Amino acid sequence: MSKVGKLRLGAFMYPAGHHVAAWRHPDTAADATTSLTQRIAFAQAAERAKFDLIFLADGVAAHTDDLKSLSRTDEWAVGFEPLTLLSALAVVTERIGLVATASTTFNEPFNLARKFASLDQISAGRAGWNLVTSSNPLELENFGNISQFAHQDRYARAEEFADVVLGLWNSWQDDAFLRDKHSGLFFDREKLHILGHRGRHFRVRGPLTVSRSPQGHPVVVQAGSSEAGKELAARTAEVVFTAQRTLPEAQSFYADLKGRLEKYGRHPDDLKIMPGVFPVVGRSEAEAREKFEQIQSLIHPDVGLELLSNLSGGVDLSAYPLDGPLPDLSETERGKSRQQLIIDLARRENLTIRQLYETIAGARGHWQLVGTAETIANELEERFNKGGADGFNIMPPTVPGGLDDFIELVIPELRRRGLFRTEYEGRTLRENLGLKHPAHRAPHREPGSQAAE
Amino acid sequence: MSKVGKLRLGAFMYPAGHHVAAWRHPDTAADATTSLTQRIAFAQAAERAKFDLIFLADGVAAHTDDLKSLSRTDEWAVGFEPLTLLSALAVVTERIGLVATASTTFNEPFNLARKFASLDQISAGRAGWNLVTSSNPLELENFGNISQFAHQDRYARAEEFADVVLGLWNSWQDDAFLRDKHSGLFFDREKLHILGHRGRHFRVRGPLTVSRSPQGHPVVVQAGSSEAGKELAARTAEVVFTAQRTLPEAQSFYADLKGRLEKYGRHPDDLKIMPGVFPVVGRSEAEAREKFEQIQSLIHPDVGLELLSNLSGGVDLSAYPLDGPLPDLSETERGKSRQQLIIDLARRENLTIRQLYETIAGARGHWQLVGTAETIANELEERFNKGGADGFNIMPPTVPGGLDDFIELVIPELRRRGLFRTEYEGRTLRENLGLKHPAHRAPHREPGSQAAE
Repeated sequence: MSKVGKLRLGAFMYPAGHHVAAWRHPDTAADATTSLTQRIAFAQAAERAKFDLIFLADGVAAHTDDLKSLSRTDEWAVGFEPLTLLSALAVVTERIGLVATASTTFNEPFNLARKFASLDQISAGRAGWNLVTSSNPLELENFGNISQFAHQDRYARAEEFADVVLGLWNSWQDDAFLRDKHSGLFFDREKLHILGHRGRHFRVRGPLTVSRSPQGHPVVVQAGSSEAGKELAARTAEVVFTAQRTLPEAQSFYADLKGRLEKYGRHPDDLKIMPGVFPVVGRSEAEAREKFEQIQSLIHPDVGLELLSNLSGGVDLSAYPLDGPLPDLSETERGKSRQQLIIDLARRENLTIRQLYETIAGARGHWQLVGTAETIANELEERFNKGGADGFNIMPPTVPGGLDDFIELVIPELRRRGLFRTEYEGRTLRENLGLKHPAHRAPHREPGSQAAE
Repeated sequence: MSKVGKLRLGAFMYPAGHHVAAWRHPDTAADATTSLTQRIAFAQAAERAKFDLIFLADGVAAHTDDLKSLSRTDEWAVGFEPLTLLSALAVVTERIGLVATASTTFNEPFNLARKFASLDQISAGRAGWNLVTSSNPLELENFGNISQFAHQDRYARAEEFADVVLGLWNSWQDDAFLRDKHSGLFFDREKLHILGHRGRHFRVRGPLTVSRSPQGHPVVVQAGSSEAGKELAARTAEVVFTAQRTLPEAQSFYADLKGRLEKYGRHPDDLKIMPGVFPVVGRSEAEAREKFEQIQSLIHPDVGLELLSNLSGGVDLSAYPLDGPLPDLSETERGKSRQQLIIDLARRENLTIRQLYETIAGARGHWQLVGTAETIANELEERFNKGGADGFNIMPPTVPGGLDDFIELVIPELRRRGLFRTEYEGRTLRENLGLKHPAHRAPHREPGSQAAE
């Protein structure tokens, strides 16, 4: 099957850039975290370049466990809340998808289903929900009245949460609304469906108070790559955002996840796998290398160490010699899969703690490409053609410079190779990603429900 | 003290209009509930007219207890979620305040504080939070995993909730952010404050991950007029949205609430009381009356009865003769104060059930004025000058027609009398309402907190 013209691109929106020291770079706005103007410029630039979507990560705690490093970073401390920000950006864009991260651990399914459905209406069918679970202790402390969930329980809750949200998004048939002024009938009550969910974690009656959007409902995105995460993705996700650094790792993840779809009655094309890529683009290899070294030089050691500690599973590494090897890490409850990626990297390349954080600090654990448009396009094309990815989530090292570099240098090269669109195919996120419009599925009807009355 | 030029006006945003049959009116858009274009036009019209704010009510359930009437109404079934909608409207307006209702019963204080603070950033200091509590059984059934709260408990939770939100909004001093690229210091950690709240309902560590806005923090609005509601308002609210139909009722409420402020160390001007007004404006009394009768004729009996049932405390009145008197109602847990208003009205004017619902259906229990610009301005001026109100929340019967009538006919008359502004005084909601900028108050610091480290 030819995949020409079908590579998907997301633009990962960190305010000053994806690099941990981006806010210190001379070309970025130091106040980008709280500048709406900067965010609008980012979204509009990505839309002009025909990116499929912009992607917002999220966490619900400032990293106050280490104030020394926190006070040297921007987006670990403050920023916009994703759903309010994307609602604002929806009004100043027309085609680009708007994907926000929101946790199943700290939200109520009715509230979350409603907010994303509302964003989907506001954007006329361009919303996506990146479903995550949370286990960060600092986040748990901001919701201390909710019981803490162990890793296994978090996923059980997430599974039920996803079912409730999808059920609520099917409350109204697409053609339920008659709006007949003459008869006074606003909707056909046979086309209203009461969910009546009663599960272990949630009891939610419904219906949702938002009607379906032009794309049916928001696109479901996931990022977990643990066993439980992959299984949940295979059952419910339409896009998976992931982090693999090498081609074999990417191929193995891709084949594994796509192979799980069939047992849920799904086709491999029903889910798009988009690994993160951190590209440092130069007009020559030397220029790219120079750009990379410039920004790497801005990483404060406090910040590098804290980032490594976070990515390696919350372990405090400050007691170990910076120029010694990574110690043995006990498996913790949080981020098992990411922890293993970091450990594998350190062992494979025999890195000290300092070398390790320098290696990963920029890309924050993601695939890092430093080179010309041609060499970067070669890498992306190979991974796309060899079963490692359906597209990529681009993480520009700085904004707007790093995003502009990718748009001005790499995207034309991808187009020359017939890999990337020159115009949007559709008006909704789902159409542009090549995902099917989800037919309305009547949720299970509560016995004795008034919907049949 | 002269209050000339100080009357405040809010525009209550119902999609097709405040009248329960507005969507059936020939001049309204039947799809207004889900039309972003209509909402943008409303917000921009209100801003051109220099309204202080637009106000969004909210509920988290469709009124599926009576599908017969529900299917004949628009905004009881579907619409936008307020915070996403206001974030979108923030980008297409510049000066008008943006007030959304959100319940303390079904939200987590960290999430709510964050979303409103984010809207406040997006709008550069124009956000307001209308704090409500919820007791509607249909809403409770959409959050069945959260325990149900009795009326008293709801308010205890609301009080603690408000304290946590206000505490989180004081996480960062206004000048905490250095953003010094050279030293690499992004903020001064002495100006970061950890809340460390541990109460009966919530444990929230903080800090909030949003910095303070140009108005300090969102304006706190409340609508409760029960005893517990008034006390909470006296302690924490800056605007109170209320429903009184007669001048003596309004004066009594006004004096009562303002009189409660002193014991919390507050000045009467620190809280603005803005009753709802439902104005039907004509160029003559006859034209106004005709407009009113036209829209009243569009109320379906099913809808009128259901509305009355809702306003009278959830009691099902369909078993009683329509042309008989209002039966004795037992006091229920929900909406005690509104129930009493309805009962008093029926007894005072000796109304049948049908007459009662016809009387209140349009204004939904609010003060109804049918007349010319002059007679309406007389009423507003009297209530404003005689200690009944600091301003009004205008509920246009239809949109855009009813809003346009008020803007084109009544506002010029208010201006001729020196009662209403011709230009915004400030850039933030707080400045325009004449509220003080809240100085940063360091929240209680948790013993042993790292903030001191």
